[in-house]
Amino acid sequence: MRKIADSTVRRLSLYLRFLEEFEAHGDATASSAALAARGGTTSAQVRKDLSFFGSFGKRGLGYPVPDLIARLRAILGLNRRYRVIVVGAGKIGSALVQYHGFQERGYDFAALYDIDPKKVGKEWTGLVVRDVAHLERDLHRHPADIAAIVTPAEAAQGVADRVVKSGVSAILNFAPVQLVVPDAVAVKTVNLVLELETLSYALGTHA
Amino acid sequence: MRKIADSTVRRLSLYLRFLEEFEAHGDATASSAALAARGGTTSAQVRKDLSFFGSFGKRGLGYPVPDLIARLRAILGLNRRYRVIVVGAGKIGSALVQYHGFQERGYDFAALYDIDPKKVGKEWTGLVVRDVAHLERDLHRHPADIAAIVTPAEAAQGVADRVVKSGVSAILNFAPVQLVVPDAVAVKTVNLVLELETLSYALGTHA
Repeated sequence: MRKIADSTVRRLSLYLRFLEEFEAHGDATASSAALAARGGTTSAQVRKDLSFFGSFGKRGLGYPVPDLIARLRAILGLNRRYRVIVVGAGKIGSALVQYHGFQERGYDFAALYDIDPKKVGKEWTGLVVRDVAHLERDLHRHPADIAAIVTPAEAAQGVADRVVKSGVSAILNFAPVQLVVPDAVAVKTVNLVLELETLSYALGTHA
Repeated sequence: MRKIADSTVRRLSLYLRFLEEFEAHGDATASSAALAARGGTTSAQVRKDLSFFGSFGKRGLGYPVPDLIARLRAILGLNRRYRVIVVGAGKIGSALVQYHGFQERGYDFAALYDIDPKKVGKEWTGLVVRDVAHLERDLHRHPADIAAIVTPAEAAQGVADRVVKSGVSAILNFAPVQLVVPDAVAVKTVNLVLELETLSYALGTHA
């Protein structure tokens, strides 16, 4: 399958959520117009996004909801579970491992690491914080699919280098830095300060 | 000033960070190539992004660092402070109000709300959790610039309607729903499950 744009993948994730809502309401079919209305986009956009994966549904009848859900889950790689490790046992790291939404969607938090001796050995929602010195050994024994990096900015690149060297090929980065990784590694950076700055920019242009 | 794309605003935020690093290292000028290398983009992209705001710097000499920092801060609306309220005193709400990076950049968390009587009245890092029933009265007395919505999915739209009605024109939404708001209101949605799903999609295409 050819590589599709990040923005399309994000819309597919949203469509999946909307379809799950429709299914919970007992709907057997969903039109592109209904998906578009729910997601603040256009029917044409919905049809274009779904056309990446061959033809779904029939004109005028809408998409069969359970079938489209199954195909979107397969496309998004949600038919398996992912082993996720978290490096950095601070507030955001803690919020991450406690968030139930992840487990429901197939992401299992397998280990939590920190460098602070005061945190190592403590239990956080069922996970005992491990010394980050054990990272390589642990990953060798139990490979992880995704590493969430929730360290201070100055530590993030070093952690990224270590997990990549140990075979992790997807990183969710919360540190306010641009990580440098090999092309084969996928990185998503969540930078809350950046999000706030796009809002303050918007406030300025509205004023 | 004409409205610029969200993706450009995000890159400007990043350039600002990189320039602050350069300034901390004592650099007086920065080339577009240096900014591009730091941010994983191209010199042409940097020059294009900065050209939105008139001509900066001189060919061959690079951009004067302190001047460019000042202009980027002005463009991003960072020369003032913003009053931010948080609705939802859960793990993520708590992580938000405790994150120092926000205050450094001009975002002051002014109030934290919850609907749970067990949380109302408790102190969280200097803020006493207020009953969300007081939202309108509080906003009338002390208008806020930005509302962060960190409630469960089913409560988010109701909270958005209430803060918008009370004059808030920018929302940072952490609930896994697409909020419907008037055009004049800016919304940024941070959906961590979506971010993980773009990673699992990437893992699937790499495999």
